Amino acid sequence: MPKLMKNRSRKSGLPPGTLIHIGEQMDKKPKITIIDYDDSSSQEKEAEEISECYPFRNKPSVTWINIEGLHHVEILEKLGGCYGLHPLVLEDILNTDQRPKMEDYGDYLYIVLKMLHFEEVKGTVEAEQISLVLGEHFVISFQEGLDGDVFQPVRERLRNNKGRIRKLGADYLVYSLIDAIVDNYFIILERTGESIEDIEEKVLGNPSTAMLNDIHFLKREMIFLRKAVWPLREVVSGLERGDSALVRGSTKVFLRDIYDHTIQVIDTIETFRDMASGMLDIYLSSVNNRMSAVMKVLTIIATIFMPLTFIAGVYGMNFKYMPELEWRWSYPALWAIIILIAASMVGYFKKKEWW
Amino acid sequence: MPKLMKNRSRKSGLPPGTLIHIGEQMDKKPKITIIDYDDSSSQEKEAEEISECYPFRNKPSVTWINIEGLHHVEILEKLGGCYGLHPLVLEDILNTDQRPKMEDYGDYLYIVLKMLHFEEVKGTVEAEQISLVLGEHFVISFQEGLDGDVFQPVRERLRNNKGRIRKLGADYLVYSLIDAIVDNYFIILERTGESIEDIEEKVLGNPSTAMLNDIHFLKREMIFLRKAVWPLREVVSGLERGDSALVRGSTKVFLRDIYDHTIQVIDTIETFRDMASGMLDIYLSSVNNRMSAVMKVLTIIATIFMPLTFIAGVYGMNFKYMPELEWRWSYPALWAIIILIAASMVGYFKKKEWW
Amino acid sequence: MPKLMKNRSRKSGLPPGTLIHIGEQMDKKPKITIIDYDDSSSQEKEAEEISECYPFRNKPSVTWINIEGLHHVEILEKLGGCYGLHPLVLEDILNTDQRPKMEDYGDYLYIVLKMLHFEEVKGTVEAEQISLVLGEHFVISFQEGLDGDVFQPVRERLRNNKGRIRKLGADYLVYSLIDAIVDNYFIILERTGESIEDIEEKVLGNPSTAMLNDIHFLKREMIFLRKAVWPLREVVSGLERGDSALVRGSTKVFLRDIYDHTIQVIDTIETFRDMASGMLDIYLSSVNNRMSAVMKVLTIIATIFMPLTFIAGVYGMNFKYMPELEWRWSYPALWAIIILIAASMVGYFKKKEWW
Amino acid sequence: MPKLMKNRSRKSGLPPGTLIHIGEQMDKKPKITIIDYDDSSSQEKEAEEISECYPFRNKPSVTWINIEGLHHVEILEKLGGCYGLHPLVLEDILNTDQRPKMEDYGDYLYIVLKMLHFEEVKGTVEAEQISLVLGEHFVISFQEGLDGDVFQPVRERLRNNKGRIRKLGADYLVYSLIDAIVDNYFIILERTGESIEDIEEKVLGNPSTAMLNDIHFLKREMIFLRKAVWPLREVVSGLERGDSALVRGSTKVFLRDIYDHTIQVIDTIETFRDMASGMLDIYLSSVNNRMSAVMKVLTIIATIFMPLTFIAGVYGMNFKYMPELEWRWSYPALWAIIILIAASMVGYFKKKEWW
Amino acid sequence: MPKLMKNRSRKSGLPPGTLIHIGEQMDKKPKITIIDYDDSSSQEKEAEEISECYPFRNKPSVTWINIEGLHHVEILEKLGGCYGLHPLVLEDILNTDQRPKMEDYGDYLYIVLKMLHFEEVKGTVEAEQISLVLGEHFVISFQEGLDGDVFQPVRERLRNNKGRIRKLGADYLVYSLIDAIVDNYFIILERTGESIEDIEEKVLGNPSTAMLNDIHFLKREMIFLRKAVWPLREVVSGLERGDSALVRGSTKVFLRDIYDHTIQVIDTIETFRDMASGMLDIYLSSVNNRMSAVMKVLTIIATIFMPLTFIAGVYGMNFKYMPELEWRWSYPALWAIIILIAASMVGYFKKKEWW
Repeated sequence: MPKLMKNRSRKSGLPPGTLIHIGEQMDKKPKITIIDYDDSSSQEKEAEEISECYPFRNKPSVTWINIEGLHHVEILEKLGGCYGLHPLVLEDILNTDQRPKMEDYGDYLYIVLKMLHFEEVKGTVEAEQISLVLGEHFVISFQEGLDGDVFQPVRERLRNNKGRIRKLGADYLVYSLIDAIVDNYFIILERTGESIEDIEEKVLGNPSTAMLNDIHFLKREMIFLRKAVWPLREVVSGLERGDSALVRGSTKVFLRDIYDHTIQVIDTIETFRDMASGMLDIYLSSVNNRMSAVMKVLTIIATIFMPLTFIAGVYGMNFKYMPELEWRWSYPALWAIIILIAASMVGYFKKKEWW
Repeated sequence: MPKLMKNRSRKSGLPPGTLIHIGEQMDKKPKITIIDYDDSSSQEKEAEEISECYPFRNKPSVTWINIEGLHHVEILEKLGGCYGLHPLVLEDILNTDQRPKMEDYGDYLYIVLKMLHFEEVKGTVEAEQISLVLGEHFVISFQEGLDGDVFQPVRERLRNNKGRIRKLGADYLVYSLIDAIVDNYFIILERTGESIEDIEEKVLGNPSTAMLNDIHFLKREMIFLRKAVWPLREVVSGLERGDSALVRGSTKVFLRDIYDHTIQVIDTIETFRDMASGMLDIYLSSVNNRMSAVMKVLTIIATIFMPLTFIAGVYGMNFKYMPELEWRWSYPALWAIIILIAASMVGYFKKKEWW
Repeated sequence: MPKLMKNRSRKSGLPPGTLIHIGEQMDKKPKITIIDYDDSSSQEKEAEEISECYPFRNKPSVTWINIEGLHHVEILEKLGGCYGLHPLVLEDILNTDQRPKMEDYGDYLYIVLKMLHFEEVKGTVEAEQISLVLGEHFVISFQEGLDGDVFQPVRERLRNNKGRIRKLGADYLVYSLIDAIVDNYFIILERTGESIEDIEEKVLGNPSTAMLNDIHFLKREMIFLRKAVWPLREVVSGLERGDSALVRGSTKVFLRDIYDHTIQVIDTIETFRDMASGMLDIYLSSVNNRMSAVMKVLTIIATIFMPLTFIAGVYGMNFKYMPELEWRWSYPALWAIIILIAASMVGYFKKKEWW
Repeated sequence: MPKLMKNRSRKSGLPPGTLIHIGEQMDKKPKITIIDYDDSSSQEKEAEEISECYPFRNKPSVTWINIEGLHHVEILEKLGGCYGLHPLVLEDILNTDQRPKMEDYGDYLYIVLKMLHFEEVKGTVEAEQISLVLGEHFVISFQEGLDGDVFQPVRERLRNNKGRIRKLGADYLVYSLIDAIVDNYFIILERTGESIEDIEEKVLGNPSTAMLNDIHFLKREMIFLRKAVWPLREVVSGLERGDSALVRGSTKVFLRDIYDHTIQVIDTIETFRDMASGMLDIYLSSVNNRMSAVMKVLTIIATIFMPLTFIAGVYGMNFKYMPELEWRWSYPALWAIIILIAASMVGYFKKKEWW
Repeated sequence: MPKLMKNRSRKSGLPPGTLIHIGEQMDKKPKITIIDYDDSSSQEKEAEEISECYPFRNKPSVTWINIEGLHHVEILEKLGGCYGLHPLVLEDILNTDQRPKMEDYGDYLYIVLKMLHFEEVKGTVEAEQISLVLGEHFVISFQEGLDGDVFQPVRERLRNNKGRIRKLGADYLVYSLIDAIVDNYFIILERTGESIEDIEEKVLGNPSTAMLNDIHFLKREMIFLRKAVWPLREVVSGLERGDSALVRGSTKVFLRDIYDHTIQVIDTIETFRDMASGMLDIYLSSVNNRMSAVMKVLTIIATIFMPLTFIAGVYGMNFKYMPELEWRWSYPALWAIIILIAASMVGYFKKKEWW
């Protein structure tokens, strides 16, 4: 289960624009990769120093700088200086508790997204913040760098010049990256869908106490996913309908496609929420039903044996003058009465459909 | 119960516009039928090769190409090439997990709908994706082709020149197809309505555990129907209010009619949802009521027999000095006391209305 | 309880504009009444043939044609032909499952409403569809004709020249008819309000199982009323704010008044819904409370008598060496112990406020 | 508890504008007071006849006519005639079941509000309808006149020329009256808030059955208050943003202040609703908890004594060959066993934390 | 737990603009601090008399007057006179029960906010009202002055000329103050988040009755926080999008940043609400589950021992002719039967998974 909130208090009271990374602190050195391409050629390298990025600043070809790991604040400061990023943008990149959003700073667009991945060990969905900066000829992407990314297929396409990606501009690259992230949501949702169907089957069949926690974690995961995905709708529609010259008309058709996917993801999350609520109802009803069944057994047993025990008790009394005790057929007759009473009780319960 | 999600992960990581069909894979060869008509004549044929469709491209008469079965991707590619369809349109046609939507590509409109049908064997409602492409002189409809369709009446009207259909253009044909699909929703809803009334009667009369699952499936079906129908509202209103020249003013009156029907379908689904929720409440109350009745029986029996058994126990004790044991009328007197106690208990419960 | 859906499937697959009446089929001949009036004179007649309506077509006085009974489709066809009604309007008139709506066809407005009446025998509220067509000099009203109508007071006012009705045009007549229908809603709501207060009193006082069904029927009635009245808001505001020349400015003040009434009706229905939900909560709590009371009785009885019975059982044992049995004061001493135990139990329960 | 609906059916079927008062009928003669003032002088009188109001019609000073008691319909008719009020306004004044609203009739504004007061005897909140008519130089206020009003402070300020009230126009007087009504809402809410905190404390401490009714009445009161206050928002914002020349710019600042107060009242009502719902949940949980405690006692007692009673029963049997019965230490040994069993049971329950 | 409402009734009936402080009354003398700065210099002093503020009125440097403690009304009156504040503004400053809002009075903007702080002793969150007045060259901030404030870091930055604060105008100072308040919300939310995770863990593990109150207080706190923060959204977006010349374009970028933070705070509160509701469900289910477990124990014990006790009772009867009593192996045989019955019961319950 991801923590409810990141430790943001560390930042409190500092002037706006102060650069502090609020996420997990890691030892790993940040990894900087640069891919520069145009229709005819493509160049890829892993940078040791952030200064290796500067020469690409003014090249007419499209440059994609990808930075994994945000804990070396000075890298950001230098890059921000070179590419003219607003201090608030740098602050937001580090502040990895952001809500997805899109901001138009004139010369560039700043986009925040959440990349989801399934944490196999804990069995939960985790979110990593992705920041994208789209300029006229460059795209800079920032990842917290916790665990691999979903951009591999985009890199492959750039290397192999597959599809239209090398022929189109930086805006199409940004589209491709967002598309990769949203595509990945479907995989997360498929897994979740499977586990819902799993739980549903069990709840309808044989509900156990453990299921209560399962349903609770499911609901919590839905709240979490919803928070990560819901604002994306606005982001994509902002890109599509915005009037920034950085997003070309030809790319907008593709953004509309992502928009549809986002709506579908949100729809699915809502459906899952509804289903989780429904399952809790079913679970509660089942528990009630079962308690009711337990009570019936108790009532049947008590109703049959209490009167019988009383009768036996009566003829266990030691009164001197109890004529029945002396009679020859008392005992068999009593057994007959006992069986009669028991049988009629059973009949009564059968009629009431409790048996 | 339809699966919660189609297997979309198969597509993940591929460049946008890659054509992969995510639905069920079938052996059946796709079926291509062409109907070409104007006011005076009508021609109908089943095509072996997709290339047979090309000649109709530039005819001034209205051409309706209907394709059942989407698993032969090359058919789509060829048709898309001939009729100038955008790669994303082709991708969406294959991606049969779409939300209903309408997109204006200038030269043509692309419409996605869900056709519902009642799966008799499983007793569930299934959805099939229908894609419609409306051009100036042509309509192309794509079905997954799982099971018959609801377009038969439209075909009949075209053949027999019934109503105004042959006199009006391609937009009216599209209207007729959507109308057939929406009309079919009412049939599905009627069936569902009947089964709701069925369950309601049982729940109010004699609720059993099986009903819990019935109500659950009902709620799930409502979630499913809602997801399929709700976006249709926007689709139809988009067609009606849009400014595409492909939809003539005379057709818009008819589209308004479909819009009303859609609202009615949505209204009905909401009503059904409310009723399903209400029934769960009733069911739960009934279970509680019944448990309460069981408890009363138990309490009555215990309250009557426990004191009596105690009394019998007392006179079953073996103390040497128990004067009552020797008295002549002890035993009958005790029976009198027993009957008195039992009677007053019964009276008490009668007064409390538990009996 | 009204059926959840009318049998609409009968219409499925037919071309749009096909005239089929989906409501109840009746033997009664439809009743056609014509009232023609202006400020100075008024003429009223019951028509045998629909053709008797034609002469009024072009008279400058206001003509109100009222048709009760929709099962003779040819009447509609003829009237539609004479007054130039669009085929979809005729279809909608017959299709008595419509949602209230208002449509502007240029020369005339088409309005659908629901008239409610209380079905005494079944004790439920039933809805009848009323269609109104407002032309420049005429109003045509269509009723299913199941049971009397609420237009009588309007007729009286026309006959007796009471109020302003004869001085104003066809739009004021339509307003008067809608006003009569909405006024009638208040009567229905008053009845419902009384039955809610009735149930509320019982639920708070002495809830019985039957009440569960009462509350359920109440909730269902609220869903039903809501569906019938909610869209009326839009209809009236459409008439008031619309720019059709058929509705004069002077009439709009009156329409605003109806609008206020409609809002009030909707408000009241929402209040009733809230109250019905609240009552279900109260009912459930009461059932729980009562079960809790039953359990307490059981627990008290068991807790008192089980230990006592055990003690009696002990001294009913047949061991040879049980010194107590021989003692002189054992028996009275045991009674003292028994009473002590019972008394301290009662004291314990009194302290716990269970008694 | 106020009745759910006033008896409106009395009006049904009458032509619009017919004057019938639907509220309580009273014997008291209506009370008419006139206050006429400008910056320099102020005149106040109680009128016997409504005709005494006529001379003020055309005076340039501000005239406030306040009428308490609506059951003398002819007073309204005459006043309406003199001041030129629309018949629908007069009808609405009498129809004391109105929703708060504001209507612009050009020459004057018509405003409906609800004045709340706490009915000490029944312990409920009652609403009285206040109608205000704002003309250029006059304000007419209508009250049902059930119980005193909240306008006294305004009268005092007029008499004593306190604040700006005498310097400003009729619109400021209307503002002052509305302000007095809204200020009074806070007093009602404070009382309700106190009783909520009261109930909350009890529910969390020691919930009893009576509390269920308390919570229910609270919820009902909230529904009632909400219905009375919610539409006020629109009324005030209509006055503030409307373009009527009757409301001067300088007064709008004050109206914005009332608007803020109204929002605050609504906010508080919503908070109270949430809290009432929350308390019902807590109440239900407490009942469940207590039932659970009762069950535990029962189970503990039964679990301890049932086995013991059985053992005692075994040695009460009369078999001829029961060797244990003859042994010397059987009886004390049995007691040892009994105590052992009882102790281990208690230990078990202690471990399970049931004890 | 903060009181539901402040004692506002004290104000009722007074003319608008009357200055009365409705919050807690304190003895402490109000503290007035003045900071006057421009890019090059900064001057800070604590004023004894409010008149010491007057000279700063017309200085071109930015003046920040901070007043802690609102119970000396005359201070406000004098300051209001000097800075030309509207009487309603002064009233609102004192009326510390305001909803957050922003009002544009042309020459200055008036902003109301809530500052939250965690009351360690009671363990609850308390709100204090902050009023800000933004003029061209001055900012006046009013605090109730209950407990320290969150403005210390801003003061430090002003003193030390850290960041851009001294270089920018009064609007940037207001931004900094709001930012400090919103930053503080995150600290409050972090604490709340931790206590939610705490409760969640306990509820899922071992729910006790005390938890019910914890969840209730949590829900109440959420209602409280929501009421304090929700309107802030509008305030900030009003500042950002408003057309007041007092807010410069360069500051709007920063306000957008606060807007994002506000949305995030609201999002988090909603998430917490959802979680609190979810925990109540889980708690209720757990209670039910446990009751069910208790019932099972009872039923198992009763079902095993009731029949056995009956059998023992039968052979405790004193009939003269009971052949079994005389048989040699009756007693051991009976034990065999008893063990058999008990064993089969246990087997039955094991199969049913009740054991």
